[in-house]
Amino acid sequence: MDQQMIRMVPIGINVVMSIFTFFLTARLIPSLKETFITANLCGQDMSKRDREKKIPEALGVVCGCTFLITMFLFIPVPFSDHILKNAEFPHNEFVELLAALLSICCMVLLGFADDVLDLRWRHKLLLPTVASLPLLMVYYVNFNSTTIIVPKPLRYLLGFSVNLGILYYVYMGMLAVFCTNAINILAGVNGLEVGQSLVIASSILVFNVVELFGNMWKAHLFSIYFMVPYIATSLALLKHNWYPSRVFVGDTFCYFSGMTFAVVGIIGHFSKTTLLFFIPQILNFLYSVPQLFKLVPCPRHRLPRYNPKTDKLNPSVTIFKKSELNILARLVMWIFRTFKVVDWQEDSEGMVTCNNLTIINFVLIKLGPLREPTLTTILLVIQIAGTLLAFVIRYPLASVFYDV
Amino acid sequence: MDQQMIRMVPIGINVVMSIFTFFLTARLIPSLKETFITANLCGQDMSKRDREKKIPEALGVVCGCTFLITMFLFIPVPFSDHILKNAEFPHNEFVELLAALLSICCMVLLGFADDVLDLRWRHKLLLPTVASLPLLMVYYVNFNSTTIIVPKPLRYLLGFSVNLGILYYVYMGMLAVFCTNAINILAGVNGLEVGQSLVIASSILVFNVVELFGNMWKAHLFSIYFMVPYIATSLALLKHNWYPSRVFVGDTFCYFSGMTFAVVGIIGHFSKTTLLFFIPQILNFLYSVPQLFKLVPCPRHRLPRYNPKTDKLNPSVTIFKKSELNILARLVMWIFRTFKVVDWQEDSEGMVTCNNLTIINFVLIKLGPLREPTLTTILLVIQIAGTLLAFVIRYPLASVFYDV
Repeated sequence: MDQQMIRMVPIGINVVMSIFTFFLTARLIPSLKETFITANLCGQDMSKRDREKKIPEALGVVCGCTFLITMFLFIPVPFSDHILKNAEFPHNEFVELLAALLSICCMVLLGFADDVLDLRWRHKLLLPTVASLPLLMVYYVNFNSTTIIVPKPLRYLLGFSVNLGILYYVYMGMLAVFCTNAINILAGVNGLEVGQSLVIASSILVFNVVELFGNMWKAHLFSIYFMVPYIATSLALLKHNWYPSRVFVGDTFCYFSGMTFAVVGIIGHFSKTTLLFFIPQILNFLYSVPQLFKLVPCPRHRLPRYNPKTDKLNPSVTIFKKSELNILARLVMWIFRTFKVVDWQEDSEGMVTCNNLTIINFVLIKLGPLREPTLTTILLVIQIAGTLLAFVIRYPLASVFYDV
Repeated sequence: MDQQMIRMVPIGINVVMSIFTFFLTARLIPSLKETFITANLCGQDMSKRDREKKIPEALGVVCGCTFLITMFLFIPVPFSDHILKNAEFPHNEFVELLAALLSICCMVLLGFADDVLDLRWRHKLLLPTVASLPLLMVYYVNFNSTTIIVPKPLRYLLGFSVNLGILYYVYMGMLAVFCTNAINILAGVNGLEVGQSLVIASSILVFNVVELFGNMWKAHLFSIYFMVPYIATSLALLKHNWYPSRVFVGDTFCYFSGMTFAVVGIIGHFSKTTLLFFIPQILNFLYSVPQLFKLVPCPRHRLPRYNPKTDKLNPSVTIFKKSELNILARLVMWIFRTFKVVDWQEDSEGMVTCNNLTIINFVLIKLGPLREPTLTTILLVIQIAGTLLAFVIRYPLASVFYDV
């Protein structure tokens, strides 16, 4: 058989297994709803007329488990050729697969523990770092290439390449922390966590398929093995999490998703491209900074406010005295106001009413109150637009900065 | 440095890390008690005067997590020599370490999910099988030796060796199922789950240290790396789980322990010896068979019955009409009665009162009512006696059956 065809066989098996997993997960989730409610893993939907209804929470753990089981069963497939021919076994590739699964499995465990036990904020930063340790070790053993090519415009300053050394490992560890938390803070509207994760996963998959015909095909093949079952299990979850949500996904799902993206980015050597697919999450993070770092008061929840009369969502607000803000906060908020990215109302006594700083509320102040599914759809369209921009940066624009 | 000394360096680091983990875990467990109770992960202690008190449950997950974090940080240590000398990296050993951790991590996740969600019996058999898949794959890749040496007395029938083929993998998968569930059914008395696991782990450790000077030293070194931190985290748990228990360990702990023992037995090629350390669990399983397979009625709980007046535990009983038993049940119970291993009371109308078939109740019918810590201590002494018997079988007796 032709070499390129041989590469396709494991992908085919992966796709068939993923289809099976999709149906399994889609059936498993509703059948476990009562079990989750009995275990007191449930919450209320604040954006519905019937707020009393108990919605099972943390169903992302089901996704994580079916994903892991699918991958466990898939483990022998990419190596079947070596096994059947009794050829030398590619232990280095096998190591990557196992370390990737170990990091993801550990993250699902820690995410589920967080959902059940409601851990503190500092754990949310610590846990992904711990879970990414096996991955970094494999990176060290298999590649240990910490040299990056400097973009053309900066070469007169830094030379052609720079060896970042240990800083590169810090960067990779932080990538896992960023990916997991970035999805976690762009949340709170039915279907948004799973929807954005599916757009990111599909973007990575498209990128992998394009690159499958290039020099780095092995790394991209590796990523495809993870993305296809990931998409299958998440689609099954979206089916039940889309408006009106019958289940919530929990931190487990955000952790599971973020770690899966970080894993394929690191092992596949395309962590910068992975970050490009997070443009809306990066914007949301930057926009949130004044509240995350307490420059501006941050209420416990920043979800949009539901109006039962119109069945629409309004931007939620934070209220404070202007005189309470320190100099840095005033500067930042002055910039935000100048660029008209906040809805800032000030009364005669200096009391300020400002929307909470998330791009969810940003969409609502720009477009007015929206029904929940419309809001989710608009946010997903923004995510898709971000992906298109990412591809423009990655392909045509990259030639300006790098020799392609 | 002398070769044997070099082997000692990673063990030394492992021991130091384990001591640190012991203190960390011992402090972490009480600090998380309230968190577990808030999450509704708690139960009552049926063998205490104050039954209303809420005891946090499933604290084994804390052990599992601190064990995994210790092992994650330890990963680079055994390979530091190769890394520093830039020697060829032993990917095959690294694969074993990662697969072992993946199986254990997966088992902790599934165990905790079981504790939180209270899964069904069939899951308890399915989950360890799934979690052992990565391990079996590594066994296939690294060894794939499925040939066993036939004991001398049987050689005239079967020849010198037999290739079990796929049956050997079935055996290894079942080993994981057995180890996890065997500990789970010898439970219900304060400190017993952790105590028996510690005796088993210490027995494995002693065996490894003895064999460290033999041909298979690498496999036993590997096992030591797992057993020392396992013992450290479990000791920390025992401190809080010993009579009177301030915390319960949950299925998570039994799953975590069983899988850790199965993992080192399989990767270290001493699965038969590992099974020898389970003699009391095997006896308990065989004794329980009539109830596990419903030959004799089996109540939901088979714990000893607490007498608040004497503060002692009495054997718990199952009551049934003798005429309800089928022919097989009558035969088995006749054998049990003949060997006087049950307390069988029959009234004039054919109603039978018989102790529940666990070795916990067996100890109580033989020695009379006991205080709970005395009962645990006696059961642990039986466990230690089992280990001594195992060493006699493994060393002096083995020469009768095999050429040593």
